[in-house]
Amino acid sequence: MTESARPPAPPLVVERWFNTDQPITLESQRGRIVVLHAFQMLCPGCVANAIPQARRLNEIAGSIDGLVVLGIHTVFEHHAAMTPVSLEAFLHEYRITFPVAVDHASTDGPIPQTMAAYGFRGTPSTVIIDREGRIARHSFGAEDDLALGLILGNLLSART
Amino acid sequence: MTESARPPAPPLVVERWFNTDQPITLESQRGRIVVLHAFQMLCPGCVANAIPQARRLNEIAGSIDGLVVLGIHTVFEHHAAMTPVSLEAFLHEYRITFPVAVDHASTDGPIPQTMAAYGFRGTPSTVIIDREGRIARHSFGAEDDLALGLILGNLLSART
Amino acid sequence: MTESARPPAPPLVVERWFNTDQPITLESQRGRIVVLHAFQMLCPGCVANAIPQARRLNEIAGSIDGLVVLGIHTVFEHHAAMTPVSLEAFLHEYRITFPVAVDHASTDGPIPQTMAAYGFRGTPSTVIIDREGRIARHSFGAEDDLALGLILGNLLSART
Amino acid sequence: MTESARPPAPPLVVERWFNTDQPITLESQRGRIVVLHAFQMLCPGCVANAIPQARRLNEIAGSIDGLVVLGIHTVFEHHAAMTPVSLEAFLHEYRITFPVAVDHASTDGPIPQTMAAYGFRGTPSTVIIDREGRIARHSFGAEDDLALGLILGNLLSART
Repeated sequence: MTESARPPAPPLVVERWFNTDQPITLESQRGRIVVLHAFQMLCPGCVANAIPQARRLNEIAGSIDGLVVLGIHTVFEHHAAMTPVSLEAFLHEYRITFPVAVDHASTDGPIPQTMAAYGFRGTPSTVIIDREGRIARHSFGAEDDLALGLILGNLLSART
Repeated sequence: MTESARPPAPPLVVERWFNTDQPITLESQRGRIVVLHAFQMLCPGCVANAIPQARRLNEIAGSIDGLVVLGIHTVFEHHAAMTPVSLEAFLHEYRITFPVAVDHASTDGPIPQTMAAYGFRGTPSTVIIDREGRIARHSFGAEDDLALGLILGNLLSART
Repeated sequence: MTESARPPAPPLVVERWFNTDQPITLESQRGRIVVLHAFQMLCPGCVANAIPQARRLNEIAGSIDGLVVLGIHTVFEHHAAMTPVSLEAFLHEYRITFPVAVDHASTDGPIPQTMAAYGFRGTPSTVIIDREGRIARHSFGAEDDLALGLILGNLLSART
Repeated sequence: MTESARPPAPPLVVERWFNTDQPITLESQRGRIVVLHAFQMLCPGCVANAIPQARRLNEIAGSIDGLVVLGIHTVFEHHAAMTPVSLEAFLHEYRITFPVAVDHASTDGPIPQTMAAYGFRGTPSTVIIDREGRIARHSFGAEDDLALGLILGNLLSART
């Protein structure tokens, strides 16, 4: 996607955060590449593929300037089964240490607000946000490691 | 384990069942080999290994006389995170169709009653119960498919 | 397969053996269950699935009376690429320690003699031979560990 | 590695090529990023990890300007077992379609000439060569997909 064609990333609408003392806004991350992993704790594809990928990416990000991994728990089904209490235990058991937001419920339907704003088709979804806060890539389902690495490496090396 | 040395399998103490209309007792299964899979829905080793194994075993059991797969949700940590409501969604998402019991909470500690009676060291635990209701094998952690198959094939072929 | 319907296992026609001082005949194995793994060293499905399974089965067989794992290298394509010299290095690199026969070339076609006698459709093929030297099972392609274990456990427990 | 510190990549010394009509020199690839995968066809780690990675990278490279995947068969043991005849069948069976060089044997030892010039410690080894023909990275053993992608994306995006 050429830079000029990239749409701005909508703000995250969040009920609460885990793994961070302070709420995080995308605005505060300008100048960094943000990889936003949208998941549900009871989504088998998230648990088997996307979350392990996010964990490994977060480890690698520790030694790279300007790369940030954020999770967002976008519950759109089985709401009573995936409360923040359950999510907290999940994050502990699966050793997820990057910041995770709880997507804010809607007042008028099952789809939470951030999910609606981004138009996620389901979970897992992965959004790459460039240094100017624009969506460089948005994908649904399992993401190939090599391909994801290539895109991130490309964005990281681009001059701002 | 020689047959005479096998201890009797304690009864299941159960709050409620999923995937069955009627509660199931071990006593009612005499004459069958029962494979009892003890798990927690937020246990990574259960999700990655033991539950897929139980599912495949249950598929195979469909074409074998006298082999039954039962699950038991033995929550001993994060109790508020793994309620029956959450478990029901988990069983749906992970397409678990064999009967699953909810182990009965204790009145005086975190370890539920069936878990205590069997002395499970954690999850996943697998118990093989012979046709006479005795414990033929009790293991903790990932169970090798070939080894499990050999033991079951052996038990199934033994004359009663 | 009921016992009476089992056909006799044809004798192995072998150019040479690896991993054994003495040639092995099926006749000498009467009273034991023999698992015969037919493979080609350049067959991807053999390398990825069947050979690791045979190795694990051979480890388990070490502690079970009356279970024997044999390999047979049934080259029916790329003959010049899979000579005994290449096979020997392959067995070393893949740490295959059970006895492996080299199937005897035919005088009139690419299919070696044991492969022809058994009617293998390709590699990997797995043949289970019972204590009386009869074929209890013959399968082509990847074999499920649980299912293979069940069959072997069943045969092992059957009284002779 | 900063660019100025990168050593020049030694020329490939090659007996013959597969999967290309014309011999390929590194010099002819100036302006492109070259990923050089050194392997042996009987090396289990190559077959299980490095070669599948090279194949996937080659597929991705088809849609990226200026990225080239080359293989080199650096036989330093079991020479008689891994001749070009065997390699040709291997490339066919494992569906390897990128160009593969046969490293030129030495006159005075088991290590072939390109392997010696690069100082490979064994197989698999992966070398990334930048647009100016310098070694940007040299690694031995399994290479993480995400990390490899990040490095390549970074190099691809760098202005020449």
